[in-house]
Amino acid sequence: MTSHFADRLFEAVKTKKTCLTVGLDPVYSRLPSAIRNHLQMNDEFDVDAAVDAIFDFCTQTMRIVAPMVPAIKMNIAFFEKYLWEGIEAYYALISEADDLGLEVIGDVKRGDVGHTAEFYASAHLENPELTGLEDTLVPDAITVNGYSGVDGIEPFAETATKQGKGVFVLVRTSNPSAADIQDFSDANGIKMYEKMADIVNQVADKKDRIGAKGYSNIGMVVGGTSPDVTSALRTRYKKIWFLIPGYGSQGASAADCIRFCKTDGTGALVNASRSIIYAYEKPKYKDQYGDDWKRCIEQAVIDAKVDLANAMQTKL
Amino acid sequence: MTSHFADRLFEAVKTKKTCLTVGLDPVYSRLPSAIRNHLQMNDEFDVDAAVDAIFDFCTQTMRIVAPMVPAIKMNIAFFEKYLWEGIEAYYALISEADDLGLEVIGDVKRGDVGHTAEFYASAHLENPELTGLEDTLVPDAITVNGYSGVDGIEPFAETATKQGKGVFVLVRTSNPSAADIQDFSDANGIKMYEKMADIVNQVADKKDRIGAKGYSNIGMVVGGTSPDVTSALRTRYKKIWFLIPGYGSQGASAADCIRFCKTDGTGALVNASRSIIYAYEKPKYKDQYGDDWKRCIEQAVIDAKVDLANAMQTKL
Repeated sequence: MTSHFADRLFEAVKTKKTCLTVGLDPVYSRLPSAIRNHLQMNDEFDVDAAVDAIFDFCTQTMRIVAPMVPAIKMNIAFFEKYLWEGIEAYYALISEADDLGLEVIGDVKRGDVGHTAEFYASAHLENPELTGLEDTLVPDAITVNGYSGVDGIEPFAETATKQGKGVFVLVRTSNPSAADIQDFSDANGIKMYEKMADIVNQVADKKDRIGAKGYSNIGMVVGGTSPDVTSALRTRYKKIWFLIPGYGSQGASAADCIRFCKTDGTGALVNASRSIIYAYEKPKYKDQYGDDWKRCIEQAVIDAKVDLANAMQTKL
Repeated sequence: MTSHFADRLFEAVKTKKTCLTVGLDPVYSRLPSAIRNHLQMNDEFDVDAAVDAIFDFCTQTMRIVAPMVPAIKMNIAFFEKYLWEGIEAYYALISEADDLGLEVIGDVKRGDVGHTAEFYASAHLENPELTGLEDTLVPDAITVNGYSGVDGIEPFAETATKQGKGVFVLVRTSNPSAADIQDFSDANGIKMYEKMADIVNQVADKKDRIGAKGYSNIGMVVGGTSPDVTSALRTRYKKIWFLIPGYGSQGASAADCIRFCKTDGTGALVNASRSIIYAYEKPKYKDQYGDDWKRCIEQAVIDAKVDLANAMQTKL
């Protein structure tokens, strides 16, 4: 993989005609009963059965969404719950996603400094050149926590750039208490998240990091749930891809999220996780498609794409 | 494990008569040649050989240091480099450490919000009740990144408290660029890290979290390299255990670090990683003990303990 991550993302968004990404946050107890009742996967408290069920669910979900969205986001916490067995499944799913032509964002929120950050970066952004792990693929991009400052971001950025990969640094998260830390303001009214965005932009806006389409491979994570505090970021940082969590279950509207897209529809990925992968729990879909959980997911993706496209039309 | 983490730590520090902890940051290329030349472990690019070498080194190092220090800190980045194979070794080493009577701090710097944080907390602070992982032990405490605010800290604190475990939240890190983010000041001169410390203290200072010795199981990570900016924290937060990285290779002196200890020697863990586990690389030890790498590590621990004890005497 030697192409530029930001260019691949640009092409993928153009091809799929949407900025929607699907987040895989698999929780055993919420998997479709067809999977949970399967003879080899019906024991939540057996690590092999549970991981097989999650792997099966994620693989099938990716096959449904792959023709419709540019990327998936995999939150590693839901795999770490099963320790090394879960991590093996996480990496195996990346290969499946790659086969399906999906860009994969590993939502790992790693962060450390110097030497240690290099080891994290290697694990998550560099395909291992190790006998025994030969065919393992890492994600196309990961999320990074930048609380340590530029020392903690640069090692990830450097590895990502060398490997044709990307990094999204947490700038403004979508949870209620985020404001306590991230909206902490200096004497001039500059907020912590704005300072963080400035630091990330310094890392992002380097010649070798800007792709042919004008975007950097180093992006920012900004929650869609706080559009009032973050809407200036799009105009301020023209070379940045934004990863926007919070659409769907977390309560951000399509209009809230779409403001991070440029008029050509690129520049932001709007992620929905639970509202799509558990669509079969909702009466809206369940009443129509019954036990056909895959059809429910498919329709939820279609509906989300339409919702975002309509918001985009209104904005233009 | 139902006892209180902060009480266990208190006893361990009193018993071992030191606040020194040893950090395991194993890097294959720096392992003793006796290990790297071993027939089954001499191939850095074979995952089994590399992980076996690291496991062997860490086990032997723990056996040397266990009689002398209260705790070890394992940085998971150095294990994640070997993906799931490394993670399996990480958890296996926790069992080894437990057998040796060491408290184990998993330096994982995880952080996320709500639901996702609960999954991380479960993976890292709750012994798995899963067939196939029955005998696996998790660390006694982990490090957590609190950039998301209290929503991102509380789920870890809750699981830790239920499980008799602990959490150390990053407040002020020991790297040069930490100041850009963590010393960001508001109109009253309050710095970001002070705000973070306040939030952590709110989580820590709850009735069910304070042990018999007056300390909370929720602590703070504060780098020893910035004593000027952080010295007020010890007096301000009397119920907090501080985890102090930066002693040794990162340049913090014993006096810098010891100021986080109370006069009875408790209240802080001062961590040294590379300066101890790679002591055999230093002429000071190599010239005296030759190829006896274990003796070099042992002496480095003794010397660090004396250095910290002397600084403590001077302070009193």
